[in-house]
Amino acid sequence: MAYGRFVYAGEVFEGYFELSGGKIIYDGLEFEIEAVKFLPPVKPEKIIGVALNYEDHAKELGMEVPKEPALFLKSPSSVVGNEDYIILPPKPKRVDYEGELAVVIRKRCKNVSKEDAEDYILGYTCFNDVTARDLQQAGWQWDIVKSFDTFSPMGPYVVNVDPSNLRIRTYLNGKVVQDSSTKNLIFDVPTLIEYISSLMTLKKYDVIATGTPPGVGALKRGDVVEVEIEGVGRLKNYVR
Amino acid sequence: MAYGRFVYAGEVFEGYFELSGGKIIYDGLEFEIEAVKFLPPVKPEKIIGVALNYEDHAKELGMEVPKEPALFLKSPSSVVGNEDYIILPPKPKRVDYEGELAVVIRKRCKNVSKEDAEDYILGYTCFNDVTARDLQQAGWQWDIVKSFDTFSPMGPYVVNVDPSNLRIRTYLNGKVVQDSSTKNLIFDVPTLIEYISSLMTLKKYDVIATGTPPGVGALKRGDVVEVEIEGVGRLKNYVR
Repeated sequence: MAYGRFVYAGEVFEGYFELSGGKIIYDGLEFEIEAVKFLPPVKPEKIIGVALNYEDHAKELGMEVPKEPALFLKSPSSVVGNEDYIILPPKPKRVDYEGELAVVIRKRCKNVSKEDAEDYILGYTCFNDVTARDLQQAGWQWDIVKSFDTFSPMGPYVVNVDPSNLRIRTYLNGKVVQDSSTKNLIFDVPTLIEYISSLMTLKKYDVIATGTPPGVGALKRGDVVEVEIEGVGRLKNYVR
Repeated sequence: MAYGRFVYAGEVFEGYFELSGGKIIYDGLEFEIEAVKFLPPVKPEKIIGVALNYEDHAKELGMEVPKEPALFLKSPSSVVGNEDYIILPPKPKRVDYEGELAVVIRKRCKNVSKEDAEDYILGYTCFNDVTARDLQQAGWQWDIVKSFDTFSPMGPYVVNVDPSNLRIRTYLNGKVVQDSSTKNLIFDVPTLIEYISSLMTLKKYDVIATGTPPGVGALKRGDVVEVEIEGVGRLKNYVR
């Protein structure tokens, strides 16, 4: 079962559906996947990102591996869905893709233990934590350089899977540029939920972007960038 | 006219009202102000803070005055209203008040000029940009140290005034601890709206916290902290 929002023939559908043989089966109705437009699967109140959560990526940026999760926020106003445009804004000189596994929260929670974390998870989706790298390196707060409009593509939908060992790949114009597994996460999903919910209340539809593996790189106008996660889906966006 | 949300006798009222002689006049109905509970006046999609926007406050923290506005996000999940508790979380060792003038956005906008900024402003409210100072100094991202639950008291309501020269004071247990004027803002309200809207879309009910004057200090359990802005209101919160 998947959860999400899509438009078909001018109507918005929202909720659980099955994916089977190129079709969406929603409440007994069948739609060709090719014929629907996916909206971002949820509207989060907050998006929490995790920096440097793959050891190799920290090295790639010349940064130390953190002892506890290094968190930041992304603005919900930066969210777009599958097949939407990532629009390069005028100010930054270098904008990077960062393919990530995102967790979507199922219900309000605080101080959740690792053991109970699963009860609060709606599922997983593909996430591109687009980042104005030059402004980040110039000392801007991370939340701002990651919150330009269209800098949080997510989708196409949310799926409930075991997140402990999923292959995650990013494709730039069809070529693999990131290729890792969620087994390489320094802080795994239950640990992140325990830690983050010890700091702040998580609400229904909040999103945690769990961090990116090595291989981040710049986007330019005309690029097609895709984040594919085994058993979760493939998120495609166009850059302009 | 003021804009906000309040509870009276178990009902929630939302919209414009007049304040006169200790009464709220809402759609012809009169309520004693003492008899209502104000909710946060809006539910913002995002809250954008401005750091070091009073020269003296930058000096107080030993930081340089920025050449352009230094921005950060606060999570909407940290918002509380007038007379609500600020709850000191277990992790930070020092939590500071920061009294601020906040701007509430009236409608969606992007790339607004200074000259047109007023068209996009619903009004102003008092804001306390509560901050876990020790974690900030330890290198945590500003958005996170400012987004613990209850760290964004705002209210009691939104009022449309000329924001260019308003006395702003913070009281800790009845004693004045911050006392300045919005005329001392390095980047004034129209400049902030022009700058922020050049980076990202502002949406209806988004909030910009314009920065705090000198005199920030620590909160402890049992404190009463109030932010008063001339012509805007007085926001009172209890610390526990």
